[in-house]
Amino acid sequence: MHALVIHGPRDVRVETMESPKAGPGQLLVRVAAGGVCGSDLHYFRNGGFGAVRLKNPMALGHECCGAVAAIGDGVEGFPVGTRVAVRPSLPCGKCVYCREGKYTHCMDMRYYGSAMRVPHIDGVFRQELVIERDQAYIVPDSVSDAEAAMTEPLAVALHAVRRAGSLFGKRVLVTGCGPIGVLIIMAARLAGAVHITATDVGAGPLTIAADVGADETIDVAENPQALSAHSVDKGDFDVLFEASGNPAALLSGIECVRPQGLAMQLGLGGQVDLALNSIVFKEIELRGAFRFHEEFGMAVDLMASRRIDVKPLISGIFPYQNWAEAFALAEDRSRAMKVLLTFA
Amino acid sequence: MHALVIHGPRDVRVETMESPKAGPGQLLVRVAAGGVCGSDLHYFRNGGFGAVRLKNPMALGHECCGAVAAIGDGVEGFPVGTRVAVRPSLPCGKCVYCREGKYTHCMDMRYYGSAMRVPHIDGVFRQELVIERDQAYIVPDSVSDAEAAMTEPLAVALHAVRRAGSLFGKRVLVTGCGPIGVLIIMAARLAGAVHITATDVGAGPLTIAADVGADETIDVAENPQALSAHSVDKGDFDVLFEASGNPAALLSGIECVRPQGLAMQLGLGGQVDLALNSIVFKEIELRGAFRFHEEFGMAVDLMASRRIDVKPLISGIFPYQNWAEAFALAEDRSRAMKVLLTFA
Amino acid sequence: MHALVIHGPRDVRVETMESPKAGPGQLLVRVAAGGVCGSDLHYFRNGGFGAVRLKNPMALGHECCGAVAAIGDGVEGFPVGTRVAVRPSLPCGKCVYCREGKYTHCMDMRYYGSAMRVPHIDGVFRQELVIERDQAYIVPDSVSDAEAAMTEPLAVALHAVRRAGSLFGKRVLVTGCGPIGVLIIMAARLAGAVHITATDVGAGPLTIAADVGADETIDVAENPQALSAHSVDKGDFDVLFEASGNPAALLSGIECVRPQGLAMQLGLGGQVDLALNSIVFKEIELRGAFRFHEEFGMAVDLMASRRIDVKPLISGIFPYQNWAEAFALAEDRSRAMKVLLTFA
Amino acid sequence: MHALVIHGPRDVRVETMESPKAGPGQLLVRVAAGGVCGSDLHYFRNGGFGAVRLKNPMALGHECCGAVAAIGDGVEGFPVGTRVAVRPSLPCGKCVYCREGKYTHCMDMRYYGSAMRVPHIDGVFRQELVIERDQAYIVPDSVSDAEAAMTEPLAVALHAVRRAGSLFGKRVLVTGCGPIGVLIIMAARLAGAVHITATDVGAGPLTIAADVGADETIDVAENPQALSAHSVDKGDFDVLFEASGNPAALLSGIECVRPQGLAMQLGLGGQVDLALNSIVFKEIELRGAFRFHEEFGMAVDLMASRRIDVKPLISGIFPYQNWAEAFALAEDRSRAMKVLLTFA
Repeated sequence: MHALVIHGPRDVRVETMESPKAGPGQLLVRVAAGGVCGSDLHYFRNGGFGAVRLKNPMALGHECCGAVAAIGDGVEGFPVGTRVAVRPSLPCGKCVYCREGKYTHCMDMRYYGSAMRVPHIDGVFRQELVIERDQAYIVPDSVSDAEAAMTEPLAVALHAVRRAGSLFGKRVLVTGCGPIGVLIIMAARLAGAVHITATDVGAGPLTIAADVGADETIDVAENPQALSAHSVDKGDFDVLFEASGNPAALLSGIECVRPQGLAMQLGLGGQVDLALNSIVFKEIELRGAFRFHEEFGMAVDLMASRRIDVKPLISGIFPYQNWAEAFALAEDRSRAMKVLLTFA
Repeated sequence: MHALVIHGPRDVRVETMESPKAGPGQLLVRVAAGGVCGSDLHYFRNGGFGAVRLKNPMALGHECCGAVAAIGDGVEGFPVGTRVAVRPSLPCGKCVYCREGKYTHCMDMRYYGSAMRVPHIDGVFRQELVIERDQAYIVPDSVSDAEAAMTEPLAVALHAVRRAGSLFGKRVLVTGCGPIGVLIIMAARLAGAVHITATDVGAGPLTIAADVGADETIDVAENPQALSAHSVDKGDFDVLFEASGNPAALLSGIECVRPQGLAMQLGLGGQVDLALNSIVFKEIELRGAFRFHEEFGMAVDLMASRRIDVKPLISGIFPYQNWAEAFALAEDRSRAMKVLLTFA
Repeated sequence: MHALVIHGPRDVRVETMESPKAGPGQLLVRVAAGGVCGSDLHYFRNGGFGAVRLKNPMALGHECCGAVAAIGDGVEGFPVGTRVAVRPSLPCGKCVYCREGKYTHCMDMRYYGSAMRVPHIDGVFRQELVIERDQAYIVPDSVSDAEAAMTEPLAVALHAVRRAGSLFGKRVLVTGCGPIGVLIIMAARLAGAVHITATDVGAGPLTIAADVGADETIDVAENPQALSAHSVDKGDFDVLFEASGNPAALLSGIECVRPQGLAMQLGLGGQVDLALNSIVFKEIELRGAFRFHEEFGMAVDLMASRRIDVKPLISGIFPYQNWAEAFALAEDRSRAMKVLLTFA
Repeated sequence: MHALVIHGPRDVRVETMESPKAGPGQLLVRVAAGGVCGSDLHYFRNGGFGAVRLKNPMALGHECCGAVAAIGDGVEGFPVGTRVAVRPSLPCGKCVYCREGKYTHCMDMRYYGSAMRVPHIDGVFRQELVIERDQAYIVPDSVSDAEAAMTEPLAVALHAVRRAGSLFGKRVLVTGCGPIGVLIIMAARLAGAVHITATDVGAGPLTIAADVGADETIDVAENPQALSAHSVDKGDFDVLFEASGNPAALLSGIECVRPQGLAMQLGLGGQVDLALNSIVFKEIELRGAFRFHEEFGMAVDLMASRRIDVKPLISGIFPYQNWAEAFALAEDRSRAMKVLLTFA
């Protein structure tokens, strides 16, 4: 079977791997579709991000769905052919954080396609994958492969929205309208936000943001002062979701958050030159949100009930052999939101 | 009557002012004692801090107590001679934030001895002061003038502790052992913290920190690596109170806060070069705490019931004519915690 | 001008009152429409409810809207003709609870058409009404008089939903599908509840419940065992909203709430024979919700933005002279949800 | 080895059982001391409580400590002779609630000396006991056997206090001064409550309540009206801990809780005739608290650090052969708080 393996910056190869076998409690999944994430692009462009660096070749990808092809001993409820979204995280279940139910912070987390551990955990951009039964979430026929492959980014957005507490009746700012930002707009709308302003530096993402529910969109490259209208009377947003990783977005966003308001930081990035007093005087809460756990199943359920429709995010679907074309599109934010690969 | 008026950096003068009169709903207070705060020292050394700058001469001081000397029309319950702690804040009661009960964030706040408004609000380092009835909190005989003059900094500490949520059974780190940091140690102990580590850059403050209840003290100037023992397993403090305003204290403190833990920022200061990922990966909450409101009355009550004893913080008491000596002592952190002035 | 005044059980009279005048800070409102509430029916049928009893004749009604007819001194922003929804509550703004922002619990609350105070506060079922400026909320043309008159019950529902914390992704049970129950279904859906089960004892209310968003409806008179399917595994609802005031609804609802789940009690009623252990073993939270405050403006906004549409609740609109016909319809739950009166 | 086995009301027998063996992951503990709990007395007097009834003979007891006598395969850190407090609860770790970290609500809980499961789980009133490694908490030499045997009731009290949220600066009412009520007084004081009122129907428990930190004690049998002084202005307690299981205590307590205040129910009991409106009008929260989980380790730590001293609760220590005398004392609330048995 084939996999997309990265050896270094701009060095991705289609390689043949031996077909894996499902052990006890495991499932063999034939991968149907996978989504290209920003972190895949970081490995592709730079060989990593921040302190996380490729130390050995690694199959890319952590967003995928597929169909059960074989069943290990002791697994029930997943007959061959069952379509499943694959949760890429596998917490240990035994460490201090797992025992507290904080699975995201597992001391021994295994996460597909991540170079955080050495040796790295291979990713899901491959034709066959063995997973633990707990990582499989059944997908109904009404949800396509392309949609099911987007369960993971939707789960990230849902986790951030849940960590923000109730949004019912709240005014929300979303900075950065990549896939996560756009999914947050959808989720915040579903959670009862009454006004959503979205910012980005390009017209393409903002058009989609408006389509999926933003009440106001601001192109901060074209119109850098427009956001500051929201900073009057100490700020008029209850909650900021910072999904760009751009320090300027966080700083200008905080200016627009009302006293005792909340700034959720999702975007990964570098250093931000933060004025301590901007946090103290308004008693702002700056709160990180990272990955997800129980929100993975919630994401499948919301797609199945059509309360959330991720199809507007799909920019292109390519067979894995055409990965180069897919990655090129994914790198162009003016044209691409979410690019998918198929592994048939 | 006399007041201590600042005209610019290092230019404080004892000046004669006309005695004020209590109008309807007001009290005339003969000031007994006042505490020198870090912000007074900022005006003294630099003429302000950050964007807040002296634009006209201003009486200094916002921490004080005194005795009622005259009563305006319509005021009951404060006979002449009643000893009172004076709340230096006077929110408008009508703006959007006051109506929500967020008095600290009043759009039209009046605060003694602050150059935030222009013209500035004169401070309490004077012999006579007119206040609104709501600003007066009766002090029992068991609480001395020197203690009562410290109600304001205690209220600041109590506000931060209350904003942190329950500390019962929690492990706490306090960075910066000036008066606010030391009062936080007392308050966190009272609120049920089970382990308190305190850091500073000098032996003097840390000795007092240990006396009032810190379980462990670390001189980060002498022993810069000692704190990092607390960063194992992603961090072992539930809550950080950053009371120094030093960016390095916040950054090293966050390293020692456990996932989904809380970093309360009280210290005012400049810019901090914050790694976004340090907030995101551990899902840290960085939450500002500023001033106080209902905690002022709580502070008087806790001193009256002796559940909190602020006397260990008193470094010296000087008549106001000797203000120069008092300020010199207050500027020397190796010798001084809280310096008080009397205005008899 | 005319008013509907109750003198005792089944004794309502159309009486002539002198036209009131708007004093400083007040508005004279020509009432357009008013809604008949369950408490109006309690006075009508029984002369009160529980310990609250009519002690003198009183104009009925607390749900209404109208148009500004005259303006008192010092009022800006409400030109004659402005259409307004009238908030029936007038907290004092000075008591201990008002100062904490808990206006609902004002020690000196004035509420239209309520016999809780003696002498009673006359209600809004009249042609002209003087209100304080703070009680007026401007209604856009897109919202009809009949809708605007339903601001108050919508605010009650919104308050209960907000007091329940985040409903995003939650499973909800609503017992009792009168106007408040149905509005809670709408609000819970808007707040992101993923599954809503509604119960009542009649087909009429349940049909409307299903129309406005309930996923499942159960007629507990026809099918008393159907709800118990939800009590498996200790219960599968995260939140119960009890809007019937029927003790049996609360008791059977708690059986279906999962451990550490929430039971919001809105329905007023009599005594409930509660097993202490049913609260203790599952660590249930039983939490009261009463009236509203800031939710009144939120209700107007949600109707204006069409995020909530109250029109499906309207069962009939009658001129006030036909009050007897209107009350007769309102008393028949099989035919009526919300009955409105006009006062032109 | 010997055990105290109950066969029916008032029918307890010292019986010989075969010595158990520690399997993999287990410890054999030689029991040193055990505490007599109210539920033991319920089995003794009535053969059960509520729906929980003895169906077969069962060893009594769930509060104990002991010393490690043998070690199963794979267990480290517990050399023979190690003194341990034994957590009586053993959640399955796999059900839906365990996976959410709500171990108290495990679908398959095993708890010593409880007739909730059939066949019953034998209790700890015996000379030898095999436990899972996770149930053992090391006790330092500074904590006596009698104290260590009280870890369980202390954990119950700590759990209730933690579930109540922050008590810092709060006014607290505790109804029922048996062991749990008295331990709640200690814990609430430690958590920063500023005023604690305690009620009971006898002088003996109230004397101990005052000794361990209650500011005010009320004998509601002698002086049934004294509590009502606390119901002025809608109530002046922030939090009620109901630890008696007496319906009258809950009802009169709620009268004294301020609007939006909290009533924690711990006491197990029968039916309470609750007025729905008493919950609704003041928007009271009635919240159950049951058993504990992580608080067991916290209890050992608080005794070890002497922040909580349980010795004032000890009323008598008897060898297990004298169980009849011990139970007789335990049944007399005028003389007994906590009675302990030794099993040497």
